[in-house]
Amino acid sequence: MKVPAPMARLVAELSRLPGVGEKTAQRYAFWVLAQSPAAAGELADAIATLHQRLGFCATCNQLAEGERCEVCLDASRDTRRVCVVESVQDVLAIERTGEWRGVYHVLHGSLSPMRGIGPSQLRLDSLLARLDEGIDELILATNVDVEGEATALYIKRLVGDRTLVTRLATGIPSGGELEYTDRVTLGRALRDRRT
Amino acid sequence: MKVPAPMARLVAELSRLPGVGEKTAQRYAFWVLAQSPAAAGELADAIATLHQRLGFCATCNQLAEGERCEVCLDASRDTRRVCVVESVQDVLAIERTGEWRGVYHVLHGSLSPMRGIGPSQLRLDSLLARLDEGIDELILATNVDVEGEATALYIKRLVGDRTLVTRLATGIPSGGELEYTDRVTLGRALRDRRT
Repeated sequence: MKVPAPMARLVAELSRLPGVGEKTAQRYAFWVLAQSPAAAGELADAIATLHQRLGFCATCNQLAEGERCEVCLDASRDTRRVCVVESVQDVLAIERTGEWRGVYHVLHGSLSPMRGIGPSQLRLDSLLARLDEGIDELILATNVDVEGEATALYIKRLVGDRTLVTRLATGIPSGGELEYTDRVTLGRALRDRRT
Repeated sequence: MKVPAPMARLVAELSRLPGVGEKTAQRYAFWVLAQSPAAAGELADAIATLHQRLGFCATCNQLAEGERCEVCLDASRDTRRVCVVESVQDVLAIERTGEWRGVYHVLHGSLSPMRGIGPSQLRLDSLLARLDEGIDELILATNVDVEGEATALYIKRLVGDRTLVTRLATGIPSGGELEYTDRVTLGRALRDRRT
């Protein structure tokens, strides 16, 4: 006996989720079958309507239900300080700190010759347009890896001295132990030591 | 900033999947957003139509696209030998062995006073009806745990001597090492030794 087609189809679809293999997909599929049709319909609807109900902010490219995102619509945010990040998830991470009262610019990626991602694939034109409107500080909050560093360097060169460009501090993470801190991080923390 | 409502809703729905926490649900949700609307629609459709396209066999209670399942419709299967299992997943596991040419009866559960599951919640009436039609052998292939053993014992008493009732062999699993076999399994294997 083979698995019936509707079940096999759902297992195949669920196997496409990141980090989900066939066993896990089958477990999810049987869970769906064990739900009421209404409950399964709720999950299906949440997936199906996501693209219709959610888009990206016309100003900063992060998640938005309308034309502008919640941050860009918030009059209390300082629109002259722009934090440049690679992804929407990075925005959520920074918002969770509660430390940032400026706005964002989401690049939707980072420069990666390995994966064939060049400057034209990032949202750089709109960033330059925002610069023209006047920005006091551009914080380059791309990841501290090869692609993120390259992206920050590229933007720094692109912007030149049109505004103040800063980068997030690098160093030993909070709660980190020197013994287990990697060589590069420790070397940088030493070089950038504060008084 | 809060996560936009359509994303928050999808994360909440995905968090209900077995073993999925909020972090994983968020990862899945962003994956959905990164897909094309058509690809997301395929996944949603596979979930939404599962209940419409898939039901349970009127004879044996396992998955069926129509009124009867593939096994019950297969004329080459021996309908006088019925293997009683707790779940549809157990049917799939036994089918994978390729060793069974009889048919099945899925109970959809096992007796569990702890979870308030009594005989009336199991598909026992239809099993007795099948017995009336004539069965040569009833193999009780419930799990080898407290609930499964109790369920097998209950059915054995219910059936009495109306047909031959057997239970799957218990013993040391294939590839198992004596040193790491638990006490109960090893004790049973010794008691049930073969010539």
